[in-house]
Amino acid sequence: MTTLSTGDLAAQHETARADYAALVERGLSLDLTRGKPAPEQLDLAGALLTLPGDTYRSADGTDLRNYGGLHGLPEVRALFSGFLQVPVDQLIALGNSSLELMHDALVHSMLSPLPGAERRWVDEPAVAFLCPVPGYDRHFALCQRFGIEMIPVPMTADGPDMDVVEDLVRTDGRIKGIWCVPKYSNPDGAIYSDETVRRLASMPTAAPDFRIFWDNAYAVHHLTDTEYEIADLLALAAEHGNADRPFIFGSTSKITFAGGGVSFFGSSPANLKWLLALVAKRTIGPDKINQLRHAALLKDADGVRAHMRAHRELLKPKFDAVDRILTEQLDGTGLAHWGKPKGGYFVSLDVLEGCARRVVSLAAGAGIALTPAGATYPNGNDPQDRNIRIAPTFATLAEVEGAIEGLAICVRLAATEKFTA
Amino acid sequence: MTTLSTGDLAAQHETARADYAALVERGLSLDLTRGKPAPEQLDLAGALLTLPGDTYRSADGTDLRNYGGLHGLPEVRALFSGFLQVPVDQLIALGNSSLELMHDALVHSMLSPLPGAERRWVDEPAVAFLCPVPGYDRHFALCQRFGIEMIPVPMTADGPDMDVVEDLVRTDGRIKGIWCVPKYSNPDGAIYSDETVRRLASMPTAAPDFRIFWDNAYAVHHLTDTEYEIADLLALAAEHGNADRPFIFGSTSKITFAGGGVSFFGSSPANLKWLLALVAKRTIGPDKINQLRHAALLKDADGVRAHMRAHRELLKPKFDAVDRILTEQLDGTGLAHWGKPKGGYFVSLDVLEGCARRVVSLAAGAGIALTPAGATYPNGNDPQDRNIRIAPTFATLAEVEGAIEGLAICVRLAATEKFTA
Repeated sequence: MTTLSTGDLAAQHETARADYAALVERGLSLDLTRGKPAPEQLDLAGALLTLPGDTYRSADGTDLRNYGGLHGLPEVRALFSGFLQVPVDQLIALGNSSLELMHDALVHSMLSPLPGAERRWVDEPAVAFLCPVPGYDRHFALCQRFGIEMIPVPMTADGPDMDVVEDLVRTDGRIKGIWCVPKYSNPDGAIYSDETVRRLASMPTAAPDFRIFWDNAYAVHHLTDTEYEIADLLALAAEHGNADRPFIFGSTSKITFAGGGVSFFGSSPANLKWLLALVAKRTIGPDKINQLRHAALLKDADGVRAHMRAHRELLKPKFDAVDRILTEQLDGTGLAHWGKPKGGYFVSLDVLEGCARRVVSLAAGAGIALTPAGATYPNGNDPQDRNIRIAPTFATLAEVEGAIEGLAICVRLAATEKFTA
Repeated sequence: MTTLSTGDLAAQHETARADYAALVERGLSLDLTRGKPAPEQLDLAGALLTLPGDTYRSADGTDLRNYGGLHGLPEVRALFSGFLQVPVDQLIALGNSSLELMHDALVHSMLSPLPGAERRWVDEPAVAFLCPVPGYDRHFALCQRFGIEMIPVPMTADGPDMDVVEDLVRTDGRIKGIWCVPKYSNPDGAIYSDETVRRLASMPTAAPDFRIFWDNAYAVHHLTDTEYEIADLLALAAEHGNADRPFIFGSTSKITFAGGGVSFFGSSPANLKWLLALVAKRTIGPDKINQLRHAALLKDADGVRAHMRAHRELLKPKFDAVDRILTEQLDGTGLAHWGKPKGGYFVSLDVLEGCARRVVSLAAGAGIALTPAGATYPNGNDPQDRNIRIAPTFATLAEVEGAIEGLAICVRLAATEKFTA
């Protein structure tokens, strides 16, 4: 488990204590809590501040300033159709947040029977979702809000452990869904393998209205030269007779302006018909002018790719710094393991069992704000108290370096405390 | 009921038939169905197409491009605080549609107990809303969507018939709310009297979680020199110990871009706390850049007033034409009565009992699209089949004139049919 030998443990503990005291002395104030883009990333979309300029019409001549257009602007739907692996006529473009769309998909499932459902979820004796862990705290918060039981499933490098998933959904009809971030997963950076996607698409489920909440938040957010692709869930599900299973979500939140982007929902024709009939009661249409701004800024698929390469230039040094410093400070100690994500917004750090809360608390004491330990597990409960999510995007490179150096000290101190306790 | 004498009825019927045949011959294609702004009105907010320009910060220095700011931009909240009669710290600014906010207020009330509630509405044996009629079809559609029973209440020139309202809510605990468009009401243009507002604020209700859905959609949408004011519901409710009763909604949909505006929700501190805790699960914040655009365009309360006077210049000739032509064609016949709204977006036309559907059908046959008869009543059911909503804003003045001339012919034909049948 650890390379610390009892012999030098006391000495190492003293060193860690001294290092930590010096760290506190520095009076840092650094924040690696949330996956927010840095100002320089937002600058890349600065043209949005004066777009769309003198035009307000879609390619088909529609006046986008007025009411209407429930499906969203065709041009912006076409722009993301390929990246999200959803045919354009099955993809709708909406407001500034895909989290909203996930929330509302749950609301509508609670209050109106889904295609294939026996009843609306609010009339079920119990509803449960599978939650691959570590995962995204805001997904878990939605389950909590709607009284949906969360069943953790371990993540692997290829996505959720499919043996466990298949076993659970085959027999337990309460299980109505699973949360998936299929590419550059939050927080562990996993890329779902083709086999995982195929098994998700084809597995038998006891619930006739089982849905995969496919939060493809990082579809184009590459950190390497390789633009990783995943298998086409929507097509595979249809091939296996489960066309209505996927709910696909995406957004430009980490492409253009985090607070002023465009979100997307894609699914089968039957699901889309169901959803749009409900959405039509809620709104006369999304902000199509903002969608036009996005189409004008990004232009086409190559425009999106070029834009994301510019993001990568800004982000890669920060992710490299995290890995370099953790390697320098902790590699070979056995005190920590961390991911080397090929994309996305996070680095997942596993420390010694029972130490994550202590590490986060020590870091806070040194002015380094980290995502609360446990946040990557349902109900904030990491049963092994091991996982810490590092979000290096918003801080400056110097801040990231300072915070990770401090974090490494906290990891060493928490570990030596554990063994000297 | 009518000035038609049996003597000349056959002759009048023949004249109406001939006029209608000539109308059909003209092959019109006119649309007075929905309350949409005309393109010239949207042009008034044309600067939004290049705003906010080179700034993306709020007055307090916040980078509005990024996540956050659940309450919305303070500047745009301050801008509408006075018009909506909600203190700025009790007013939040959200997305592009107040209909969404009404929908979501219902969702949250269905799924989470309101302040003062015994249980969430989905666990009530039945939930009912009072629906002043004629009223707004999209309000009724929301009730339908959530299985909320609709109880019609007659409108008067001073708002809903408060004797009826007070009687119902005092004894019937199923009644959880009432829909109100308090100023320039949709469709009849009523302006709630101070006494109506006071009685709404103070009346005893059997339901402890009774809410007034106060859709102040036309707060600044004056058609005359008088900027009518209504009593302050939120303050009156608090004075009478019913602070949590009002849910106040507003938007810029008919001020700037109908599809790209800003919406508002105002209420008591307790309601706001309840709502924001739920909204925080759904979103990390609204599109604050679009809110900044609106603050930059409209600047201050005087800016809003000047902007609305420019709308009035465009709208008044259309409303005048409706009244002038209906007066020329139908005044003194007893075949129709219509409102003379002092603001808002509609003219409410009452025809002879049992004739509204026929009039709308005849108009459709002559290429004049009208809002379906019955739309202003719950479940599309106008028990007297009398009311027709005229929406003259979107069409050009010439189109409005042509459509109302045709409509008058249809009213005459339907009436003479009724008496010769």
